[in-house]
Amino acid sequence: MNPFFKKNPPFLLSKVISKIGLKNINISKKYINDIKEINIAKKNEITFLHSSKYSDIAAKTNASFCITNLKLEKFLPKTCLPLIVKNVLLSTAKVTEMFYPNAINDEFDYSVSNISKTLFKKKTKYGENVLIGKNVSIGKNCSIGHNSIIEKNVLIGNNCTIGSNVIIRNSLIGNNVSVLDSSIIGKKGFGFFPNKPQNIRYPHIGLVIIKDNSEIGSGCTIDRGSLSNTEIGKNTFLDNQVHIAHNVKIGDNCMIAGQVGFAGSAIIGNNVMIGGQAGISGHLKIGNNVQIAGGSGVINDISDNSKVMGYPAKSVKVFLKENRQ
Amino acid sequence: MNPFFKKNPPFLLSKVISKIGLKNINISKKYINDIKEINIAKKNEITFLHSSKYSDIAAKTNASFCITNLKLEKFLPKTCLPLIVKNVLLSTAKVTEMFYPNAINDEFDYSVSNISKTLFKKKTKYGENVLIGKNVSIGKNCSIGHNSIIEKNVLIGNNCTIGSNVIIRNSLIGNNVSVLDSSIIGKKGFGFFPNKPQNIRYPHIGLVIIKDNSEIGSGCTIDRGSLSNTEIGKNTFLDNQVHIAHNVKIGDNCMIAGQVGFAGSAIIGNNVMIGGQAGISGHLKIGNNVQIAGGSGVINDISDNSKVMGYPAKSVKVFLKENRQ
Amino acid sequence: MNPFFKKNPPFLLSKVISKIGLKNINISKKYINDIKEINIAKKNEITFLHSSKYSDIAAKTNASFCITNLKLEKFLPKTCLPLIVKNVLLSTAKVTEMFYPNAINDEFDYSVSNISKTLFKKKTKYGENVLIGKNVSIGKNCSIGHNSIIEKNVLIGNNCTIGSNVIIRNSLIGNNVSVLDSSIIGKKGFGFFPNKPQNIRYPHIGLVIIKDNSEIGSGCTIDRGSLSNTEIGKNTFLDNQVHIAHNVKIGDNCMIAGQVGFAGSAIIGNNVMIGGQAGISGHLKIGNNVQIAGGSGVINDISDNSKVMGYPAKSVKVFLKENRQ
Repeated sequence: MNPFFKKNPPFLLSKVISKIGLKNINISKKYINDIKEINIAKKNEITFLHSSKYSDIAAKTNASFCITNLKLEKFLPKTCLPLIVKNVLLSTAKVTEMFYPNAINDEFDYSVSNISKTLFKKKTKYGENVLIGKNVSIGKNCSIGHNSIIEKNVLIGNNCTIGSNVIIRNSLIGNNVSVLDSSIIGKKGFGFFPNKPQNIRYPHIGLVIIKDNSEIGSGCTIDRGSLSNTEIGKNTFLDNQVHIAHNVKIGDNCMIAGQVGFAGSAIIGNNVMIGGQAGISGHLKIGNNVQIAGGSGVINDISDNSKVMGYPAKSVKVFLKENRQ
Repeated sequence: MNPFFKKNPPFLLSKVISKIGLKNINISKKYINDIKEINIAKKNEITFLHSSKYSDIAAKTNASFCITNLKLEKFLPKTCLPLIVKNVLLSTAKVTEMFYPNAINDEFDYSVSNISKTLFKKKTKYGENVLIGKNVSIGKNCSIGHNSIIEKNVLIGNNCTIGSNVIIRNSLIGNNVSVLDSSIIGKKGFGFFPNKPQNIRYPHIGLVIIKDNSEIGSGCTIDRGSLSNTEIGKNTFLDNQVHIAHNVKIGDNCMIAGQVGFAGSAIIGNNVMIGGQAGISGHLKIGNNVQIAGGSGVINDISDNSKVMGYPAKSVKVFLKENRQ
Repeated sequence: MNPFFKKNPPFLLSKVISKIGLKNINISKKYINDIKEINIAKKNEITFLHSSKYSDIAAKTNASFCITNLKLEKFLPKTCLPLIVKNVLLSTAKVTEMFYPNAINDEFDYSVSNISKTLFKKKTKYGENVLIGKNVSIGKNCSIGHNSIIEKNVLIGNNCTIGSNVIIRNSLIGNNVSVLDSSIIGKKGFGFFPNKPQNIRYPHIGLVIIKDNSEIGSGCTIDRGSLSNTEIGKNTFLDNQVHIAHNVKIGDNCMIAGQVGFAGSAIIGNNVMIGGQAGISGHLKIGNNVQIAGGSGVINDISDNSKVMGYPAKSVKVFLKENRQ
């Protein structure tokens, strides 16, 4: 169950079909309960399949309905009814919006109160002008700096240090986490469908999850996930001005230097070290114990224990040999 | 007419000549009304020409006066009196400062009031500690988040969403525009003349213009123009931590991913897609429908419909062939 | 003497030895007064040596004690007692923390007052919600924008312009300095020792020093030093979103374009020009009058008067020849 975004009650399949522009294919009266990613969707839920990259996972889905196209429907099991559309992601956006109408926009949270008027007044150390939204929980022994805004839907563990000018929303933060000044955590990701004259925003119902003992530097931006979550593992440290796009998952014990950027849905293993200004492309997988030199551009998967450098990133040894000075 | 920066009344040509260190060349008593770029300057206005790159435009200028040097004066029409100096840009800065003395510095706007004490109180949805300067207009159905500062000289259209901790000044913002948290729009650009022991700041009398349906991500910086404006086209979306220098013009329906940077005076066409962390050098032109891969460094003009990658950016096909792994 | 971080009184050598896990080597009762870098440590002070790169400096040290390892102890003079450990930097962190226990964390400064309740009320031009910490000094004719926080331990000279949403701590700022909106100056650097399940933070007892006539752009982050200081020279201008890590020293009259990043302990000469998005690796030296093209990645020392480009950065001429298009 999504802890933060209010979900509408089940919709009739026929209503969903009509929303994505399919002709009513005159099927029996079925309800759809929720929309989820293909690997976690259950019976009576709808999912989507937009790339053959996920064909193995698709074959095992428990979803009862799947938005997909003519080329991909063959990967689905018989228990899953394909809904064939031209633009899978656009139709998925429309259906997600049906279930989660509040997840499209990120207007500021006007439900906040000054922390001095909340129950946190007593147990939290706080600065001037700190604002707290609804559905916020803060553990023991935490501090929140001046002008910081903890918008609605944020759970913070024990012993956390939040700097000044920080903005957090839609996030689960573990114990012993530091978030330094001016970082922005949990805003909607940069996911939308190009459309003229006005792009169509993709709903972002995912969260940001930051696990125990981690540190987020100053001026970082960590966007929440779309259908999935954005995750920072345990004891992972980010330097300043790091950008983490929606759905990115970073493992435990990683060190990410300044100005590194992660495009959407990249998966990073444990014990990964990334030098300053490196860029990680979207939808790729980096193994455990990988070292990525500063300034590198990673555009392919990287296997465990590799050391890479350059753009496109390749073995450090090869790169330095090719670029001997 | 510049809507925001107060212009001084006309100056005598002799006074301008003296300001830039020319000997009084004993000409008749003429007045100069304003300073503008060479393509839009009119009769009795002064302009400048500092590169042969603009020789074609120079030949057609309507300006009556032009700050230039010995090599370039030949490009000017007879109707335009050349003022020959050693350092064209430095002299132009000095003359611009004569006309627009308030455009050099960007001290914070101390004329602001809390929005609750302004006329916007009723029609705008606003957060805590929102400040509004003089000469600000805000359309219908807009929201402005906590701690945001709309300094003087800002016009905002209808249905705009301004996040928290945002700072805007000297900007024209269209309808249906979103500006996400902590972006800084309209500050002076990074334009100055190296000088020891103290650099000389170039006046920035241009604006930032953001057109309808566009979105500016979190933590972006968009500097206002010097003599020209900085422009973001319609339905153009910027991800987080994008930097746009002065005089940059970006077309309609563009998608700019996280941490991309544009150096001064770059011109970008319509329907351009730019991947994360790409950098665009100054004073170049990128055509329509261009795709630039993440991490690329563009140092030359790019023609319409190209797909480029690498540093220096070249055809994606060529780049991938050369960098096969 | 460190002007900002409170130092504990001298410790017995035996106590220090015990802290870093050495067996008590049964030496006479000696006191250690302070911990400093190897080139400035004096008699009865302790220092550290972790790389043969510093062997020449080590040979001349006046320190009485040095944390080092078996391979490096031979470089020390007889007047300096080597304390042999496995991990030099980790042991140094532990000993630094003994002397400077307050330099590990950067919790927000809750000692601040609104500027309207301080002595600066009369002589400083200030915006709404400006906060001032203890041990702050501000010169004549300065302005501080809205929501800015000058935390404890900041000295600001005359004629300085501080923008809005700025955060400064542990910094010495000269005369005629501009700090533009939302920059963060003086936070602890990204220095720590990887450790599972919780990294060990390195104390940062250094300052940020910004010299006369310099300008810091919007959204910059400048971290304070660990044992040394982070320094920005005179008349050096930084554009927006520049990141400067701990211990970096930048000379006079430099121009640093947008989104440039400096890794820790890099040393930059005078009159250096660096194009947008360039990255400078840690612990290297860039000479005087060097020009570094935008987007370059500098991973080696650069000699005076060089013009470099590319990643790894090489001579501009060679780079453009190799990359002719």
